[in-house]
Amino acid sequence: MPIITLTTDFGLQDAYVASLKAGLYQQLDQPTIVDVAHLIDPFHIGQAAYVVRSVYRDFPQGSIHFVGVDFNETPEQDLLVAELNEHFFVCADNGFLTLLEPELKPTQCVKLTLPQKVVQQKGIEAIAHLARGGALSLIGTPVQKLKQRTQHAPRVNPQKTEIQGHVLHIDRFGNVITNISKKLFIQTAQQRKFVIHARNHRFEQVFDAYHDAIRFDVPKEKREEAGKKLALFNQQGYLELAIYKGNPKYGGGASSLFGLAYLDPIRIAFISEA
Amino acid sequence: MPIITLTTDFGLQDAYVASLKAGLYQQLDQPTIVDVAHLIDPFHIGQAAYVVRSVYRDFPQGSIHFVGVDFNETPEQDLLVAELNEHFFVCADNGFLTLLEPELKPTQCVKLTLPQKVVQQKGIEAIAHLARGGALSLIGTPVQKLKQRTQHAPRVNPQKTEIQGHVLHIDRFGNVITNISKKLFIQTAQQRKFVIHARNHRFEQVFDAYHDAIRFDVPKEKREEAGKKLALFNQQGYLELAIYKGNPKYGGGASSLFGLAYLDPIRIAFISEA
Amino acid sequence: MPIITLTTDFGLQDAYVASLKAGLYQQLDQPTIVDVAHLIDPFHIGQAAYVVRSVYRDFPQGSIHFVGVDFNETPEQDLLVAELNEHFFVCADNGFLTLLEPELKPTQCVKLTLPQKVVQQKGIEAIAHLARGGALSLIGTPVQKLKQRTQHAPRVNPQKTEIQGHVLHIDRFGNVITNISKKLFIQTAQQRKFVIHARNHRFEQVFDAYHDAIRFDVPKEKREEAGKKLALFNQQGYLELAIYKGNPKYGGGASSLFGLAYLDPIRIAFISEA
Repeated sequence: MPIITLTTDFGLQDAYVASLKAGLYQQLDQPTIVDVAHLIDPFHIGQAAYVVRSVYRDFPQGSIHFVGVDFNETPEQDLLVAELNEHFFVCADNGFLTLLEPELKPTQCVKLTLPQKVVQQKGIEAIAHLARGGALSLIGTPVQKLKQRTQHAPRVNPQKTEIQGHVLHIDRFGNVITNISKKLFIQTAQQRKFVIHARNHRFEQVFDAYHDAIRFDVPKEKREEAGKKLALFNQQGYLELAIYKGNPKYGGGASSLFGLAYLDPIRIAFISEA
Repeated sequence: MPIITLTTDFGLQDAYVASLKAGLYQQLDQPTIVDVAHLIDPFHIGQAAYVVRSVYRDFPQGSIHFVGVDFNETPEQDLLVAELNEHFFVCADNGFLTLLEPELKPTQCVKLTLPQKVVQQKGIEAIAHLARGGALSLIGTPVQKLKQRTQHAPRVNPQKTEIQGHVLHIDRFGNVITNISKKLFIQTAQQRKFVIHARNHRFEQVFDAYHDAIRFDVPKEKREEAGKKLALFNQQGYLELAIYKGNPKYGGGASSLFGLAYLDPIRIAFISEA
Repeated sequence: MPIITLTTDFGLQDAYVASLKAGLYQQLDQPTIVDVAHLIDPFHIGQAAYVVRSVYRDFPQGSIHFVGVDFNETPEQDLLVAELNEHFFVCADNGFLTLLEPELKPTQCVKLTLPQKVVQQKGIEAIAHLARGGALSLIGTPVQKLKQRTQHAPRVNPQKTEIQGHVLHIDRFGNVITNISKKLFIQTAQQRKFVIHARNHRFEQVFDAYHDAIRFDVPKEKREEAGKKLALFNQQGYLELAIYKGNPKYGGGASSLFGLAYLDPIRIAFISEA
């Protein structure tokens, strides 16, 4: 049976997640359920898209991903089941899918027409139906046009001397993840020197791993390891600003040290040799 | 094998929950364990009862619910195993069961007489015994009288012009859940108009779903959707005060906007037509 | 298949834990994965060692424990797989194993020589290899000398009139756990009277359970139960300072009431009869 993953803004203090799982256990025999995160900021579709995008491809193809963030049905918002990039998603038509994969269209997508009254029960039924290998056409009708939502994509100025992006996510370590991809950076840089500007902080180098910022050739007692600020391309291929072994609890996270918050601008200026 | 659910005040930063699970894995072959919540306020039996009550019926009959809140055995407090409403509960005789279902008596209830020295080990043994289908009489002796605890029930004044209740729970979204049930409301209201008073906030309408508060017939640009305060009867049938799509992190949760905390009074005044 | 436990500083707001689990599900058929804790302070090896030490023996022998705290491979730090005390550990050579069991040496220990590029992928491969019963020698080369890290052990003064220890951990309840073991206490005390000094608080008795501090022979209305400060030897055999039914949320946790933090000194003075 395919794996079912759960990403919600239900939190961990109430029984909301357990109620969802109870429903799945009622419907399925020994389902495999993996919690992705339940601490998505309430109704924050953009954050949910970032978190799901960073992990869904790690699961086997055919996995079912439930996105319980603004999972609500109203006269203006349907519930969806979509197959996208060989994975299934159960979510609302609130722009989530277009934020998840701006450049991909679902292979198939239906709006749920299940008779259940309670919205969560519809979600449970849809997941269980998919888990049993049921066809999408049996639980919904085709959707022609998804609600679009776009995050401000990073912008390259006409002279190609600058990339303007912004902060996309701040993780548990206080690391600042931007919306500037390695691909865009390399395309635009064309081997030129550059300076990354984040508030009044500057970075002139981008690493491929945290510890690449450490000068292991320098004797240890002369090194400034912990607390070293660095820019790197993370596992997901995005520019990240970090503090080597920073700990946000003790004021050592990148986001607080750099004074950066969600959506704050990040600018990369390229320097042409004279 | 029946599902085992865990509701505790053990928190998520220590290994207390894992230790409990380790014991269950030692005793049982491939048990199905579902976490309900581990962030119950320390020793807060009332909150545990609210959380468990909101979810236990969603699980299959015969499920085993461990309540690790004040789960301690003293000269004045026994450990219990009870069958109640077709579900099993392993908890302490601290009033939890009477708060969980004030109007139901257990079908059977024993106090544990297991020989293990450590209290958690007794809990694990009891859960495992139930999971294997063992009889309650083999691990304990019948309890005649449970320790009673009552939450202040909502009160209707003699003239039946008012219901006086209070805040029962504040959830992750900052929603304020009261102890006033839809049933009591309908009985008392007798179709009269009413005003709900919560501090200096007033509500003259109660909805059946969050989005029922939204005027979908009004053009979207003229609507005040997010941030709209509303009263509704929630899935569990209790009066809830909420902010449509409120986010407590950004000051938008109902409890902070209305200035309401656990046990604060909520009053419904009924207006007789002259 | 052996149980896999996860202890990390990955947090619960991102998809880092789910990514790890996804990898394990890709490699193994229906693995049993138990979360120990994912809220270890970032890079806090000492805390990870405390948390894992308090629970790993509760799992069946042969269990596999992944320690994702500072799990990084650098020119100066290898990744390890060790068999220690009949359990397997996948961790980094950053002193974790020597903090976990200062007095035990691994039965076998290799540094990983897997070809994967990404460090997390190496960890997943190593766990999966162990879970399939693979030999350590197939995925690494023997390690001669582990990186040593020692926590300040408690000290007994030459006159044997004092034990000097410190705070090792503060748990969810605000309980203060010290590095002074029951064994050391009994050896040193030799039945003498004593006073435990923690800041300006004094304890002249050590209990074996929280409720042993309560005088059940005194009528209930005359007792001061909740809020009673006490010292006890906890389940793990360490001296703990606690408040009976204390709740840190309402200012009632031991650590805040006693004004104690991680590494603060705790002193036991023994009093010789004149």
